[in-house]
This record gives sequence, C-alpha cells and structure tokens, in this order.
Amino acid sequence: MRHLTLALDIMGGDFGPHIILPAALSALTENPDLYVVLCGANTVLEPWLAQQDKHIQNRIILSDCQQTVTMDESPITALRSKKDSSMRRMLDLVEQGQADACVSAGNTGALLAMAYHVLKTLPGIDRPALISQMPTVDGGKVYLLDLGANVDCDSEVLFQYAVMGSVLAELVGNIDRPKVALLNVGSEQNKGNDRVKTTNRILSETASLNYIGYVEGNDIFSQKADVIVTDGFAGNIALKSCEGLTKLVINEVKKASNQNWLNKILAKIALPLLRNIYLRMNPDQYNGASLIGLRGIVVKSHGNASSEAFLYAIREAVKEVNMQVPTKIKDKIEAVLMERH
Amino acid sequence: MRHLTLALDIMGGDFGPHIILPAALSALTENPDLYVVLCGANTVLEPWLAQQDKHIQNRIILSDCQQTVTMDESPITALRSKKDSSMRRMLDLVEQGQADACVSAGNTGALLAMAYHVLKTLPGIDRPALISQMPTVDGGKVYLLDLGANVDCDSEVLFQYAVMGSVLAELVGNIDRPKVALLNVGSEQNKGNDRVKTTNRILSETASLNYIGYVEGNDIFSQKADVIVTDGFAGNIALKSCEGLTKLVINEVKKASNQNWLNKILAKIALPLLRNIYLRMNPDQYNGASLIGLRGIVVKSHGNASSEAFLYAIREAVKEVNMQVPTKIKDKIEAVLMERH
Repeated sequence: MRHLTLALDIMGGDFGPHIILPAALSALTENPDLYVVLCGANTVLEPWLAQQDKHIQNRIILSDCQQTVTMDESPITALRSKKDSSMRRMLDLVEQGQADACVSAGNTGALLAMAYHVLKTLPGIDRPALISQMPTVDGGKVYLLDLGANVDCDSEVLFQYAVMGSVLAELVGNIDRPKVALLNVGSEQNKGNDRVKTTNRILSETASLNYIGYVEGNDIFSQKADVIVTDGFAGNIALKSCEGLTKLVINEVKKASNQNWLNKILAKIALPLLRNIYLRMNPDQYNGASLIGLRGIVVKSHGNASSEAFLYAIREAVKEVNMQVPTKIKDKIEAVLMERH
Repeated sequence: MRHLTLALDIMGGDFGPHIILPAALSALTENPDLYVVLCGANTVLEPWLAQQDKHIQNRIILSDCQQTVTMDESPITALRSKKDSSMRRMLDLVEQGQADACVSAGNTGALLAMAYHVLKTLPGIDRPALISQMPTVDGGKVYLLDLGANVDCDSEVLFQYAVMGSVLAELVGNIDRPKVALLNVGSEQNKGNDRVKTTNRILSETASLNYIGYVEGNDIFSQKADVIVTDGFAGNIALKSCEGLTKLVINEVKKASNQNWLNKILAKIALPLLRNIYLRMNPDQYNGASLIGLRGIVVKSHGNASSEAFLYAIREAVKEVNMQVPTKIKDKIEAVLMERH
C-alpha cells in the first residue's frame, strides 16, 4: 500500500477535537502508511501533538485555521465568509493535491456547498450525491443515494447516480455486478412520476449496469438490491423517517419495561439490540456517508458521532483512495455514455 | 344519530367475503342505525344472508355484480372494463346518493382511478389525497398525506392537502386547531425544493390554518405536528420504508432470540409489541386510509386486512359521514381561498 494523506476537519461536529483527535490517533496507529493533515486551531492542536509519540508526530501536519463553520450556519454564509475555516481548508488541500481525501463531521449543508464549489463535479456528472449504506434483513447492506445533496434531480442526474452508486458498491462494497434499482411508489411499469419513468427507460437500455427495475420503500431493507437510487428529497425523507421510527420503537420498549419485572429483563436485552439498529439506521453515524461525483474524495461523519464512528469514516476515506473511486466513476460514466450514443 | 348507509366492496382484498362479511355483521350489530349495501356476487351473498337474524337482514341490501377488480389489475383496465365490478358499484351508489360512503379493501390504484373518475373532486380541490394516521412516541397519532394518490403535486395541490388534512384531523381526529406541518429535508427556511418553498410561503400567509412550518422525516413520529403534508411520492416512500424497517427489527429480534434462553424470553415479550407497532405502521391495515378531496367518502382498508381491520375502516367511514367531511372540506377550502384573495 502506498502512503496516503487525509485532511481532517478537526473543528467540525458537535464535539470537535474531543472525538476527532482520538479517532485520528487510532487511524494512524492501525495504518502505518497513513499521514494526516489536521485542519483546526493550532492553539488546540499543538499541545495535543506535543503529547504524542515521535512515530505518530512524524505523520501529522498541522494546518492552522482561524475560522470554524458552526453547525447551524447557512451554506451560503459558510461558502462566502468562512474561507479560513477548517472545513474549507481540508477541501482546498484535496483540490490542491496535498491530500488524497478529507473527512468532516461538520455542518452537512455547508460541506455540500463548499465541496461542490471547491472540488467541482467529475466530467459527465452534473451533481454530487450523498450516499451511505443501510442494513438489510439478512445482515447485508444496501447503498442508498441521494440522501439529501440534491432535492431536485432530473432523470439524467438520477441516471448518473445509478452509475456512481454501482461503482462505489463494486469497489468499496466489494459487490460483484451490484444490482441497481430505482425507488418508486410501486413495482409495476406504469407507476411513478415522469422523471422516474424516464430514468427507468434509460437504465433499462444500459447493458453495462445490472439494473433490476423499480423497488418500493419496504424493499430498502429487503436485500433485493445492492444500490437504490432516488432523488435527495425522497432519500432524505426515507432515511430520517426510519430514524424517527427506530426512536419510537426504543421508546415503546422502554415504556413496556416499566410495566413488570419480566419486561424489565426484556428491556435490558432488547435496548442494546435496538440501539445497534438505530446506529445502523444513522449510516453516517455508523460508517460515514460519502459525497460522490466530485473530483476528490469527501467523507461525512455524523455531527454527534463518537470517536469510533469518526474512525469508520476515516477508514471509508482510505478505502475510497485505495480504490481510486473518483477516477473509476469518471471512467464508468464515460463508458456508459459511449454505450448510449 | 340518523340512519346511514354504507356501500361495501365485498369482493375486494386478498380474502374478499371471508373477512368482509364478518366485519359487516359486527358493524351492523354494534350500530343499529347502520344499513349496508353489499356489492358482490349474489351467489356468494344470498346463502350468507339467509343465515342471518331477521333484524340484521332488514338492514342489508344486496347489489349483484358480475365482475371483480383483481389485486394486480392496472388502474386503466379496471376503469375501462370493470364497470360491473363490486368496486365500481359501491362508488356509483355513493355518486347516486344511494350510499353515504363506501369501503373497499381492493386494489388501491384501481380504487383511486375509479373514485376520481366517478366521484370527481370537490370545488377548489384539484386532486384527491390518501391520508391515514401514524403512531407517535407518546401514544398519540399524526395524520400523514398524501400516501401515494398523486406522485406529482404542485404547491397549490400541497396547499389543498394541508387544508383537507386539517379538516379531517379536527373533525374525525377530534384535535382542536391541528398543528399542520410540511415535510422537508430540513427545518431551516432555505431548505427544500421550489415546490416546498412556495407551499411554505402560501401556508405561512394562511391565518386560518395552524401552520407550524417544516418538519423532517424523523419528526413524523415525534408528535411535533398533528398533520404532515407531502407529495404522494415522498409520502408513500416514507410509509413503506418504515414498514420495511419494522420487518427488519422483527427479524433481528427473532434472530437474537435463537442465541440463548434469555433472548428467547425477550422475544416472547418483544415480538407481540413489535408486531403491534408494525400493524400501526400499516395504518390502512389498522384503521383504514381515507381518500379525501372527493364529492363522496371513500375508505380504503388494507388488501390483506383482518375482519377487525375492515371493521375499523367501516367505523372510520361512519365517523366521516357523521362529521360530513366532504362538505366541511369544501367550506374550509372556500373560506381559505377567500382569505387568500
């Protein structure tokens, strides 16, 4: 494995350096080929760095940033007035080729806007997408995109999402000829809006994708497909509805546990299980969500993620670097467009 | 209470008369003011009717139908070639004023198409909506619409949905000044697509609705709102994703229960609880989904619903008749449109 450098937004997320620095340390310890550029306030980073072992220190570069993008900042404000922020710096480093990928737990809207502005989309890709894995019934996984990067997607964008999702599932998810499906309100051909029907027609004609047709919302978890494509509006709502439902289930189990001693035992066993499902339902909390379709690798960890979750996001970034995901997406979209014309 | 007459589609759903006739009998027994017109094959209905008590027989009219709409039939085919079906008959009876409302467990797509064609929308309403209740964390409920009647809704249609949802929540849900919210990908003003933003602006200016702004997918179950409005695409996907997730959770609990004896006990308690949530996640299975915005009352019960669920749907139809839901929707939309101009 070649050396690789990740730029990390140390100030992002609800807990900033407190959870991100331990995650960086774990990543550096488990991967001797890894270098990191820590983007953040040197006043915080220098004292921490001084305490680390020499062989770890040698693989850390500090990049002092005077600004921080706050969690409630509007994307426009962040884009215009936070040019010296830790989030912007890590993206600049990727753009300048000084880092192979970047990871942030910061404000999602600001990250999307800045990444799109700084890194630009790949040739043949109109819009980036936010993609992550969801759990499926048999312990498997499914890639769902877009989770909210673009609330208005036409059929061309949905088609590009199908290509990008397929590439990520194959390279990073290690799935051979991933089954790609389009999320719809029914599985029959006549179902759906015009945008979905047009996308279905284009995908059906694309032999180099393993397109299996429509799936419905309940199929997300059914293992029917390896990649499920939808617009950022429906994708975000599906993801967050499921998050809300998991909370509801946890709440009901807690209430039931107060009814009698047998239920108390039940809750002791059921709650960790349900919390685990809840974590898997918050995929960016679990293993990061990737922003794909850009000329660089950007991984988003959840704002209130733990060190362990941030470490997952770092590992995801490392995998995408090793698999050269942006190059492979570019190649695949070129090939597919050739096939169409 | 005045006498009221319901037309029932006896042949609809996966089990047809086997579950619907017992439900009709229970409804007639519990409500002495109720009359029913059973739409279906007289060859099936006559022998059943002969076995009933005289005072029940007196409140039953048979309406012989030669056709049945199958569960997998396309809406267009059903509309064009099933004019003598039990589903069509019950709608015709409502349209002709011979029944006050109708209930079917049949093919949803066909029911939507036929109901729209036969009953037409109310003045001021462009499209009907499918609405039902979902459970919320504190044992409450929230009305969600549209669940899939219209996959393409412009801001005017979404606005009308807000009005209709508010009327139903107030009259049938018995909620005083129901809090109405718009489903979006974020709660900030700048979030969402143009359609959602325009609807938000119109609703904000409508003083006679208790509009509280945007909610996100995870808020569906949070009790923040009494009525949540979205287009039929996102609504259907939210509903079905949650259905799929509940199945996943049930599956995980079953798997865990095979691991050791303590988990076996857990499963015995947890599974009925989870199945109950699953039923509540299938709202039309639980208490029916209503097709509102039409010049008549149409309640949809789930295709594989039990007799008990069909009875809930009948009770929902009775409530809507007593509350004169279509008239009240018409009045409210008139008042609101006056307010806007």
